[in-house]
Amino acid sequence: MTHTQQMLQTHPRSAAIESGVLLQCIEACFDCAQSCTACSDACLGEDDVATLIRCVRLCEDCSDVCSTTGRILSRQTEFDPTVAAAIVRACVDVCRACGDECERHADHHEHCRVCADACRRCEEACTETLSALAA
Amino acid sequence: MTHTQQMLQTHPRSAAIESGVLLQCIEACFDCAQSCTACSDACLGEDDVATLIRCVRLCEDCSDVCSTTGRILSRQTEFDPTVAAAIVRACVDVCRACGDECERHADHHEHCRVCADACRRCEEACTETLSALAA
Amino acid sequence: MTHTQQMLQTHPRSAAIESGVLLQCIEACFDCAQSCTACSDACLGEDDVATLIRCVRLCEDCSDVCSTTGRILSRQTEFDPTVAAAIVRACVDVCRACGDECERHADHHEHCRVCADACRRCEEACTETLSALAA
Amino acid sequence: MTHTQQMLQTHPRSAAIESGVLLQCIEACFDCAQSCTACSDACLGEDDVATLIRCVRLCEDCSDVCSTTGRILSRQTEFDPTVAAAIVRACVDVCRACGDECERHADHHEHCRVCADACRRCEEACTETLSALAA
Repeated sequence: MTHTQQMLQTHPRSAAIESGVLLQCIEACFDCAQSCTACSDACLGEDDVATLIRCVRLCEDCSDVCSTTGRILSRQTEFDPTVAAAIVRACVDVCRACGDECERHADHHEHCRVCADACRRCEEACTETLSALAA
Repeated sequence: MTHTQQMLQTHPRSAAIESGVLLQCIEACFDCAQSCTACSDACLGEDDVATLIRCVRLCEDCSDVCSTTGRILSRQTEFDPTVAAAIVRACVDVCRACGDECERHADHHEHCRVCADACRRCEEACTETLSALAA
Repeated sequence: MTHTQQMLQTHPRSAAIESGVLLQCIEACFDCAQSCTACSDACLGEDDVATLIRCVRLCEDCSDVCSTTGRILSRQTEFDPTVAAAIVRACVDVCRACGDECERHADHHEHCRVCADACRRCEEACTETLSALAA
Repeated sequence: MTHTQQMLQTHPRSAAIESGVLLQCIEACFDCAQSCTACSDACLGEDDVATLIRCVRLCEDCSDVCSTTGRILSRQTEFDPTVAAAIVRACVDVCRACGDECERHADHHEHCRVCADACRRCEEACTETLSALAA
């Protein structure tokens, strides 16, 4: 059992949405934040960095948004569904843009392929969280 | 002239939106991020902390979102209007929720009054940025 | 294989320190950042929140430092050992302070016990990284 | 009077160090975090980006550390001098490394000159805070 899972289970308040959906989304956000920071940096280390500028930039944005979304979803006390939906919606948009860009470079750079995968999973997990919040 | 202003003027690419609007929004985001971190902490130092839990929580969320929005708007290279609009829209929602909550405590706690003011300014600056992005 | 592991392996530059040590440290930092955000929030949801103020505060600090340390260690391009050692050293200190405080509440609150464990692992992983950087 | 100043004055607990020193340091940290995010991005927009990789990377690190230091110093409740000193010490080191690198490009890129100035001020403010913490 991961620490994230244990933290969810030992929280004094019950999660605002189905805890399996929430857990997956929190873990996907932190995971994508890490991959995007690493991919942005890996692009900077490539010889063809000049062709990867848009990838570096979107990875920076995506890392920041995923990190913030992961933190907000980690909080269950006085959970505000409007605030949660607002940041999760933004996270869907940024993960899609970043995943699309990474995919364009996936054939030339393995790190872009891996990062695109992390973005897709996070986009999906956030989409499920949005549905759960609307239910 | 602030460093933020100088950084905007010396950037090799021109800003995607009117630079006065952008400058005000970046500065409001960093300012609100600071006020919210400080207000969350000031609430923790109050004797009636038990009545301020929602304020602490929303201030944490608002600080995280403002910080991320300020960073994303500080980037002009390969600016993506969809990504920018997504995070700025989330920032409007979180600033409104946090400003409303801080206002409820403004009569008893000066730091909540000051923080509500920072949230309002950031909400307004983000709303103007959204209009500029849609233009 | 985690995304973090894949990102390390596909980076164009080789890691500055033994990659097993680095991987464990990056993952421990992101994990501890999540646990600390969650523990701070769980404490806010407890009836005896007034006795947990120091725990909330140190968890906020620890989450911020671990998040920053995890990002810096995720970057291998133009790796600067002085910068890396500086932030990892700070992370050891903050994880120790936060882990000690969480442990004081471990008998009453399961989330503090789990979070103390996350802090200990991160403190250890950072200590190993410091040794590797000095080697 | 800035919001940061007002937040310090209205906090229920008194600042752990001389409030003028603290105020200047908090403001310098948030300012440097913004400049470094902007400089990293401005470098990405330059034609000679390949010669600026180390600058981009250190600006990313410096932005993260300054942002975390600014948040930690913004908290006065249950202030822990060991934790504060640890992160402020790291901030001095990172600002020095980043300021040195930006200065190397100051003749060719105005944004590097401005960012070097922000780094120097933050390094100085952090050094003064360290002295105050040791007093």
